[in-house]
Amino acid sequence: MTAKGELLYEGKAKKVFRTDDPDRYLVEFKDDATAFDGLKKGTIRRKGEINARLSALFFQMLSRRGIPTHFIEQTGPRQLLVRAVEIIPVEVVARNIVAGSLAKRLGLEEGTVLKRPVLEFYYKSDELHDPMINNYHIAALELATEAQIKEMETYAWKVNELLVEFLRPADLVLVDFKLEFGLHHGSILLADEISPDTCRFWDGTSGEKLDKDRFRRDLGGVEDAYEEVLRRVEKLIGENL
Amino acid sequence: MTAKGELLYEGKAKKVFRTDDPDRYLVEFKDDATAFDGLKKGTIRRKGEINARLSALFFQMLSRRGIPTHFIEQTGPRQLLVRAVEIIPVEVVARNIVAGSLAKRLGLEEGTVLKRPVLEFYYKSDELHDPMINNYHIAALELATEAQIKEMETYAWKVNELLVEFLRPADLVLVDFKLEFGLHHGSILLADEISPDTCRFWDGTSGEKLDKDRFRRDLGGVEDAYEEVLRRVEKLIGENL
Ligand SMILES: Nc1ncnc2c1ncn2[C@@H]1O[C@H](COP(=O)(O)OP(=O)(O)O)[C@@H](O)[C@H]1O
Ligand SMILES: Nc1ncnc2c1ncn2[C@@H]1O[C@H](COP(=O)(O)OP(=O)(O)O)[C@@H](O)[C@H]1O
Ligand SMILES: [Mg+2]
Ligand SMILES: [Mg+2]
Repeated sequence: MTAKGELLYEGKAKKVFRTDDPDRYLVEFKDDATAFDGLKKGTIRRKGEINARLSALFFQMLSRRGIPTHFIEQTGPRQLLVRAVEIIPVEVVARNIVAGSLAKRLGLEEGTVLKRPVLEFYYKSDELHDPMINNYHIAALELATEAQIKEMETYAWKVNELLVEFLRPADLVLVDFKLEFGLHHGSILLADEISPDTCRFWDGTSGEKLDKDRFRRDLGGVEDAYEEVLRRVEKLIGENL
Repeated sequence: MTAKGELLYEGKAKKVFRTDDPDRYLVEFKDDATAFDGLKKGTIRRKGEINARLSALFFQMLSRRGIPTHFIEQTGPRQLLVRAVEIIPVEVVARNIVAGSLAKRLGLEEGTVLKRPVLEFYYKSDELHDPMINNYHIAALELATEAQIKEMETYAWKVNELLVEFLRPADLVLVDFKLEFGLHHGSILLADEISPDTCRFWDGTSGEKLDKDRFRRDLGGVEDAYEEVLRRVEKLIGENL
């Protein structure tokens, strides 16, 4: 067992704790939900557990398919043991279908399948409200090296491919998702979480939203949607993991 | 003389007219000034003449140094004869020093010299308020091919280099600027205008703003600033063009 040490950071959705091993952290997933830059606040029952479990399953699946991730093991119902990383303050968003801010930015209807999938970078900065940035901004701010940007892009595309394929038999459409990467002794690892908080999942048949948009847009059935995604992904494991 | 034909398009700062030759347009520069997405409106005395003249001089200088531009000749005090292009709806912004929207986006103080110059793309769309986009958005919207994006980037960097060098002896600092490119029988030409409406020029000694920011921010002395830029650039011609 790994002893939970000092609370290092409490974010909007998770707490990060030190352990005895400086190379390892414990991440605890909370039920707290926020949206619109913290303007909307709430709780989603069982979200912590569901997102911890889903993240564990996704990270495991991706690791086995060649993506280096921070995930070591699940150590509690809402707790993951991970490699300590220095987070690169660049959120990487991949998109297959138009939704959310992209619909506004490009004036396209939500649900439009993109002719070419899109990758976007956002500067992870609460004060600046996570502005969209490009490779030149990243270089000017020295947020990452050119090689690191390239690597994050390559991994993001690969994660997209793997997740889309993985989720298809569960009739889950991967609309878009946000990734965070970090540096662990100089190498890039996929970090943070992969969950209905950070991905848009639509039911492949009904088109029903099964993600945080139910909370953002007050669509109701938030908890059920999260449970449903977990149920479908757990069913896949035996078959695909 | 080229006869002015049908008015093809009236924009915020210029009118575009057909000529007898389908390959050539006449561009007439207006004194009208707008800012903040058309919210602020006004007139800047002599702006049409000054911007036509400055654009002519800059395009000539750039042409002679290997940049393909739409400029053919100046045909009147506020009128340029240009090659007809189909404008690529992507505004290319190059930045050497932090100002304007970049200061807000990155939380950097105006005047900060960028460690690495920055290039940005904006989707030229009044309805969408010219949102910032990246290469992937351009590909998804099919606004330009990958080769065309590359070419625009290459030209933008070259224009930056040439303009910075050209303006230095006039004690004008090139803070940032916006370019538009268009297609003429399949090849990319630098089009539109290059003027204090589309560039930020600061006096190298006093730091005084000599561009449209004087209008945007009600700093006074707008006309004088435009005149001053023209005076300094005309002085350079004999020496450098
Ligand atoms: N392996 C890791 N090592 C260090 N920090 C991590 C790791 N994985 C995720 N983090 C960071 O921990 C924090 C997780 O908490 P979260 O509630 O998502 O924060 P935030 O509100 O800043 O997004 C984030 O800042 C995230 O970048
Ligand atoms: N050589 C050219 N051929 C065709 N159109 C051009 C050319 N140069 C510039 N334009 C376009 O003509 C219009 C110029 O008017 P302007 O007042 O700047 O318009 P806007 O308000 O749309 O920016 C712009 O849409 C610009 O893209
Ligand atoms: Mg987070
Ligand atoms: Mg214009």
